[in-house]
Amino acid sequence: MTTPVRLLIHGASGRMGQALLRLATERPGLQVVAAVQRKVDQRVLDGVPHFASSELAAAPAFDVAIDFSLPEAFDPVLALCAERGSAFVSGTTGLSGAQREALETASARIPLLWASNFSLGVAILDELVERAAAALPGWDCDIVESHHTRKKDAPSGTALSLGAAAERNGATPRYASIRAGDIVGEHLVQFSGAGERIELVHRATNRDIFARGALHAAARLAGRPPGAYRLRDVL
Amino acid sequence: MTTPVRLLIHGASGRMGQALLRLATERPGLQVVAAVQRKVDQRVLDGVPHFASSELAAAPAFDVAIDFSLPEAFDPVLALCAERGSAFVSGTTGLSGAQREALETASARIPLLWASNFSLGVAILDELVERAAAALPGWDCDIVESHHTRKKDAPSGTALSLGAAAERNGATPRYASIRAGDIVGEHLVQFSGAGERIELVHRATNRDIFARGALHAAARLAGRPPGAYRLRDVL
Amino acid sequence: MTTPVRLLIHGASGRMGQALLRLATERPGLQVVAAVQRKVDQRVLDGVPHFASSELAAAPAFDVAIDFSLPEAFDPVLALCAERGSAFVSGTTGLSGAQREALETASARIPLLWASNFSLGVAILDELVERAAAALPGWDCDIVESHHTRKKDAPSGTALSLGAAAERNGATPRYASIRAGDIVGEHLVQFSGAGERIELVHRATNRDIFARGALHAAARLAGRPPGAYRLRDVL
Amino acid sequence: MTTPVRLLIHGASGRMGQALLRLATERPGLQVVAAVQRKVDQRVLDGVPHFASSELAAAPAFDVAIDFSLPEAFDPVLALCAERGSAFVSGTTGLSGAQREALETASARIPLLWASNFSLGVAILDELVERAAAALPGWDCDIVESHHTRKKDAPSGTALSLGAAAERNGATPRYASIRAGDIVGEHLVQFSGAGERIELVHRATNRDIFARGALHAAARLAGRPPGAYRLRDVL
Repeated sequence: MTTPVRLLIHGASGRMGQALLRLATERPGLQVVAAVQRKVDQRVLDGVPHFASSELAAAPAFDVAIDFSLPEAFDPVLALCAERGSAFVSGTTGLSGAQREALETASARIPLLWASNFSLGVAILDELVERAAAALPGWDCDIVESHHTRKKDAPSGTALSLGAAAERNGATPRYASIRAGDIVGEHLVQFSGAGERIELVHRATNRDIFARGALHAAARLAGRPPGAYRLRDVL
Repeated sequence: MTTPVRLLIHGASGRMGQALLRLATERPGLQVVAAVQRKVDQRVLDGVPHFASSELAAAPAFDVAIDFSLPEAFDPVLALCAERGSAFVSGTTGLSGAQREALETASARIPLLWASNFSLGVAILDELVERAAAALPGWDCDIVESHHTRKKDAPSGTALSLGAAAERNGATPRYASIRAGDIVGEHLVQFSGAGERIELVHRATNRDIFARGALHAAARLAGRPPGAYRLRDVL
Repeated sequence: MTTPVRLLIHGASGRMGQALLRLATERPGLQVVAAVQRKVDQRVLDGVPHFASSELAAAPAFDVAIDFSLPEAFDPVLALCAERGSAFVSGTTGLSGAQREALETASARIPLLWASNFSLGVAILDELVERAAAALPGWDCDIVESHHTRKKDAPSGTALSLGAAAERNGATPRYASIRAGDIVGEHLVQFSGAGERIELVHRATNRDIFARGALHAAARLAGRPPGAYRLRDVL
Repeated sequence: MTTPVRLLIHGASGRMGQALLRLATERPGLQVVAAVQRKVDQRVLDGVPHFASSELAAAPAFDVAIDFSLPEAFDPVLALCAERGSAFVSGTTGLSGAQREALETASARIPLLWASNFSLGVAILDELVERAAAALPGWDCDIVESHHTRKKDAPSGTALSLGAAAERNGATPRYASIRAGDIVGEHLVQFSGAGERIELVHRATNRDIFARGALHAAARLAGRPPGAYRLRDVL
């Protein structure tokens, strides 16, 4: 029997943090050894020791930290990983230029992975779009993304990132956005030629996939050589 | 055996006119007795007598005129139908207000039908959209239309007409347009609620459907009481 | 301010019963006055009085009973509604012929509604399919349904019911079933003609829609004349 | 200005042969120098010299032969290419084992390419399916193909070939077939995981794409080293 990968969940009280704590127990080979959040009410919850942000240094040994927090909480957890030689997985958005550089620097010492979307399906789609765009020069490229009505930005960050993948390979994508109902997230990348068409679609129906993707990334990143990994490197 | 419905094709040299002449022979119960176009080179083509616009009055007896021409050629053929008591089917676009009124006036004497889109499928979709919008108050309504890159206007006339059908029944449609490849024409009308969604789609893959729809309308309009019919009235 | 519609939830401990209790509080104009389940541990839960099946007769006055239980628990709750003149909404499956007759008989005294699928979207789709089939004689009709891999029966009951709606109107539907992932439920009814095609799609992404549909039906059924209603009659 | 690639069209009177002759004139850099069919009525048609099958040896110098004929006409044209050192593109189906071996043998002397489907989009889809299957172990894989009602075999050869691509990479595809209207050809390969799904779709709307694909393959194959190429090698 193999030793489980020991996780520290940083940002444990947020929506992603809660999903990570809940889903980590379902995945064999993972063990949450510490949950870190701004303030702590209960020292132990469901068998997991909880720590306040201010007590981060007191966390026990861990193999990977998963961080879905805020830019202002980001620096200490990255520093802790670099110091201890633990892997680092982060989906915290709104990082400053200095923080991006800190990631770059840390990647010389530890394996780390930052992504804006932890769905495995989107990571695959990204790669398929690259390949299709490269193979279909001159075809029209359209990206249609659909999300719930509370989403303010359009096109979605994921649509822009898929478009960038197409553009790096010679396509000129156009975007359309639909905001309707409670759609979790759908992305269509369509390549249209004369008399034929390719449609590449990702549909998310459950927000849990983002937490599952981060847990998957953590499981795969543990024990790798230092470096800045992309989600698709660890699929 | 029943007598065939006798057709006069007006605008016979255009793309629609050519399709009408070709497809009329495939549909039992129809007989083209006259083809009218601006200028005539051959008096008889494939057994069909051809007439120049200036000779319209010399056309033999017919039951229905099908007109896909231009606004400047429109008035005489409508007048001829009203005079002879023949039915009138028209898809000529760009009519003036006076010409629309002439249609209204003529509908007291003859059965007539004007439409911007003669696809039977779109006529049905229009009706389904009305019903869905009425039954789903508060659901988001989105219309996505896709056409070939040579189409300049957006949203398409058909999308606007579908949107009007939704709006008459309480929905507030938003539009997205895709111009890609050589797509003949696709329309999606989507209603999104909490936790569920209805998508109503029409896909045209062959331009012939528009000519077929006009021939179908002509066959069904012949012999009806005077009035202004919609395509869906004769399905 | 209007008086709320008083509900009795029958089968309160089941998955649907739990969803009904949770979602009833979100919908204005409804008040759960009794929850009935086989055995009761707590007399009052979240302010709602709970009753064991054996105590059904002791339930306070209510306007509508919503029943998602089992055939063996069905008879007493229907009898109670008929006796008290309350409306009855049921999604209990596996009823015997005698139970179906009892429904028929009761419909002379109270308004009642039984359905296998309480999604409002599916009820609408059913109606759209009827209309499309009637208007498109000779078009091919295909029904594709997709559900999670735990669903054993295929085609789904809803697909068969959509197919029956098409068949009543002259179409001859063929079925295809996909069992994949955790798909909540998707139904495509496609009509294919020459050069064009209509696709009517329903996608359910959240099981709550079934409970919401039943609550909606209850709200609309209260106070109606006796009769056997269909879901689409109360949309 | 570069010298055009000289083509011999073998099976020139068939549906594909006719499309190849028509579309070759639209593509710059190609010149049809000979059309071969079973019997010849006119020696020169649209400027292209025509030869009977029995006169194949008399054909002028050519760079690539494109063959869409029948197994009984296949051997001489392959032999001629091998003898003259010309490239060979073929979509003839129903080849015997001996004929497949002859292809294998000839590939040591000339560049050649045999495929059952010359759509560029399908060739790309094949590659995308391989990649997706490899990256998504454990996801359900479903293939749905739709074709016109005259198509007898199901699943389509293309669906089986896409399925084989998925299977080589660990997936276990299931198939569904729709035969409806005059659908030219559509293939959906769907990968379903927990809470998300990837759909890869190819839609053909015009049969010309198969001829265009073969012309494209011919243009790219001319002048290559000997070998057995796949369509995707020459995209």
